[in-house]
Amino acid sequence: MTFSAFAAPAPKQALVPHEYEPRALRPQDVEIEISHCGVCHSDIHLIDNDWATSVYPLVPGHEIVGSVSAVGSECTLAVGQRVGVGWQRSACLRCEHCRAGNEHLCPDQEATCVGHMGGFARRIRIDWRFAFPLPPVLEAASAAPLLCAGVTAFAPLRRWHIGSGARVGVIGIGGLGSLALRFLQAMGCEATAFTSSPDKRGEALRLGANEVASSTNAREIRALANRFEFLLCTVPARLDWITFLQTLKPNGVLCLVGAPSGLLQFPAVQLLKTQRVICGSDIGSPAAIRETLAFAAEHGISAQVETAPMSEVNAALQRVRENRVRYRMVLTT
Amino acid sequence: MTFSAFAAPAPKQALVPHEYEPRALRPQDVEIEISHCGVCHSDIHLIDNDWATSVYPLVPGHEIVGSVSAVGSECTLAVGQRVGVGWQRSACLRCEHCRAGNEHLCPDQEATCVGHMGGFARRIRIDWRFAFPLPPVLEAASAAPLLCAGVTAFAPLRRWHIGSGARVGVIGIGGLGSLALRFLQAMGCEATAFTSSPDKRGEALRLGANEVASSTNAREIRALANRFEFLLCTVPARLDWITFLQTLKPNGVLCLVGAPSGLLQFPAVQLLKTQRVICGSDIGSPAAIRETLAFAAEHGISAQVETAPMSEVNAALQRVRENRVRYRMVLTT
Repeated sequence: MTFSAFAAPAPKQALVPHEYEPRALRPQDVEIEISHCGVCHSDIHLIDNDWATSVYPLVPGHEIVGSVSAVGSECTLAVGQRVGVGWQRSACLRCEHCRAGNEHLCPDQEATCVGHMGGFARRIRIDWRFAFPLPPVLEAASAAPLLCAGVTAFAPLRRWHIGSGARVGVIGIGGLGSLALRFLQAMGCEATAFTSSPDKRGEALRLGANEVASSTNAREIRALANRFEFLLCTVPARLDWITFLQTLKPNGVLCLVGAPSGLLQFPAVQLLKTQRVICGSDIGSPAAIRETLAFAAEHGISAQVETAPMSEVNAALQRVRENRVRYRMVLTT
Repeated sequence: MTFSAFAAPAPKQALVPHEYEPRALRPQDVEIEISHCGVCHSDIHLIDNDWATSVYPLVPGHEIVGSVSAVGSECTLAVGQRVGVGWQRSACLRCEHCRAGNEHLCPDQEATCVGHMGGFARRIRIDWRFAFPLPPVLEAASAAPLLCAGVTAFAPLRRWHIGSGARVGVIGIGGLGSLALRFLQAMGCEATAFTSSPDKRGEALRLGANEVASSTNAREIRALANRFEFLLCTVPARLDWITFLQTLKPNGVLCLVGAPSGLLQFPAVQLLKTQRVICGSDIGSPAAIRETLAFAAEHGISAQVETAPMSEVNAALQRVRENRVRYRMVLTT
């Protein structure tokens, strides 16, 4: 048996059809017939080997929706059941982090499409504990981005106890930021969208932001001094961190979910007198993915997506590279 | 009526006897007859005008123990009652921070000896809500440092939920660090003391540390990679933050309570994949001071102090300037 996929044969190359022999179905595995797969900027980084971790041929894709087509003896999912898969495909499930429900912090975790064949494919086999039943109300294409972009935006809001009435800034209105605005609106928060794209200002308001500001104009940022309980930075850009920190209230939290290059720099005194916090967040645990899906289902939240047939994957990737997608590209098989 | 005190007449000057006319006792005031006052490095910074906030003549002192000698009409403390005072002398008690029990984050807070006459004096008048009854079991001299150094070390351990079994690093074994080690031992934590002073290594173990490492030798720090839930940095030194961050486990917290000059610098990726946190903490709320005092009383914790009569304040200050005190200087009247 072979699985059909699209793979980058080498760094920065166009994807080409690729057939591969899957590993044997282990007791803990589930096999999924893929119907949809979102395109994340991380897929571009993997194709380009930006993180020096890529193995070629490389099949990207880690925002997967499909239906169970085969199960190992220990898998409790049912054939035909609709499931989603995100960035993570396995963890040791024995270490202190796994046992504390933080499987995404496991040192032995494996990523869906790093060193393994990902979701730009007809089928995939992964540890069933990293495949998540989709609430029936969620439509497949617009649910796919919830598995990575969605949980990445949602998990830190829960970790940091962002509740009704909180004032939250979202820096960057793309795949993650657009979902963050929807989540915050549903949570009863007052959201400010920071964007460098003038054409996204109206969009951000439509997505649930209460106001919009520039992410690059220091004067506009400074006008919001001492305003936010929480700042979620979704872009891997080098921003004016010192000015952004000033927009946090005492005890406020700046949480990075994108990784800017270079060094973060700021004076320690910005953290001391106001007890401000700087932190990062990385995807989310399986429990956070389940909660993201349940919250989205409860509040009618889905990603705003463009779809393209997987056969047109290279054109789709090009739109992602050019930041032209509003807000997430999803491939259909 | 005049109050007798010791004041710096100008920046970096020796203290001289100083008499001043106190403000009238307001309804919300308490007057305290001071028996003891700790000497904090902040007092040196104030004398030297290092923060450009000093007003001269400047009476330092903000680790005060004494007995109530007069009360305003709204004060519920009793004349003769033993109380302590820390860094903060008042707050608006109306803003969102005050109402949430975070009076130390109030934008209108006043410091005990910034723009007001502090505790190197026979008496002081302050808002009674910032004077705290001392548990009877606490001895006055060794309790004085709990009011500033103590709560500054204790409050972040509570804020960040440091519990039994946690592995905690304490950077700097001075007035704050020595108390932090005592608190951590009483909390059932496993503490590592980081110090740049070889002669403090044995002392740190005696104070409750489970092990000691250099705070400046990168190789020794690196050997503790991925070890701590919490790192409390009590020194205002410029350290190798990147290497220290590596000693944190995933979700681990680096908390600064001293303000190093210059910029903190580190790559964002150090926060992302591991969800590490960098934050600051500033003294503590009145509730935190009360809890610090109660915890110290319950567990028999007091500061290791040297005492000197207030008439020898300049010699005492010199010992503090030379970092020769083990671990806190307390002046007695």
